Amino acid sequence: MVRENEIRAGEAAVDLPPTTDGGLVFIGRIHTPWTSRLMTPRQGRADGPVCRIEIFDPWRQALDGVEKFERLEVLYWLHLSRRDLVLQSPANDGTARGTFALRSPARPNPIGTTIATLVGVEGNVVLVRGMDCLDGTPLLDIKPDRTLFSPIAPPQPGDFETG
Amino acid sequence: MVRENEIRAGEAAVDLPPTTDGGLVFIGRIHTPWTSRLMTPRQGRADGPVCRIEIFDPWRQALDGVEKFERLEVLYWLHLSRRDLVLQSPANDGTARGTFALRSPARPNPIGTTIATLVGVEGNVVLVRGMDCLDGTPLLDIKPDRTLFSPIAPPQPGDFETG
Repeated sequence: MVRENEIRAGEAAVDLPPTTDGGLVFIGRIHTPWTSRLMTPRQGRADGPVCRIEIFDPWRQALDGVEKFERLEVLYWLHLSRRDLVLQSPANDGTARGTFALRSPARPNPIGTTIATLVGVEGNVVLVRGMDCLDGTPLLDIKPDRTLFSPIAPPQPGDFETG
Repeated sequence: MVRENEIRAGEAAVDLPPTTDGGLVFIGRIHTPWTSRLMTPRQGRADGPVCRIEIFDPWRQALDGVEKFERLEVLYWLHLSRRDLVLQSPANDGTARGTFALRSPARPNPIGTTIATLVGVEGNVVLVRGMDCLDGTPLLDIKPDRTLFSPIAPPQPGDFETG
């Protein structure tokens, strides 16, 4: 079951800091088939439905070249998630574990990440499979899948450092 | 070369929106060997130096169970990056491509992501290899590597949807 606002047995919440430290801009919107948190996948699947990632102005030009990557890392803002849980019980069975040991949407900074499979680019819309978020979720970033990308900039000393 | 504030041949910048849409809390700080952007790796390596991720109060309890995961996804705030570039020329050679086709730190929401190899947990410090950021970088999130994590919460209808 998806939580609404309850705290479950074994869970722990903290007081959120009164101020924030950094600001996000919503650069687009993700259109998916899921309009209720009761329907949304827990994890996206590579053969899941095609979803539409709409890019807002003035960011459209930043799409130049994304069509070359078979997979994209997509970051989005889980806008309905509570942020104050440090221990969570996803199965609601009295046992809990730390938020950083879970991929639950409830986290201090509710940023979702997925590796999506590219279907195509049409104007300011990127078509992908593999999403797991609600319809209307704000977009934060798109990057090439790390395993498909090699830096174009010349290497730096740190690139050769082992230890 | 790492950019300071110049715009290079072929690049394009936009006016940033006057307001932000979401707020981040810095939940920790990443300690690395790199104190200059001229030294920092372009991409972390699994045999790179051990780095220390310090978790601030009140988030320490959220570490419960992270020691079970061999690899962690780490999200951090690239606090020195410019945010207004839509076309970039990493090689500074007159050719440019879109920000979303690059893993450059310069992006509308400068969130870095890496897959780090866990070395150990000591109190409120997570020791990892594979980082690529400056010493002092603000931490946003830690999650289990997606390939090592199975949801604990019961599946939902969307988990079975293909298309």
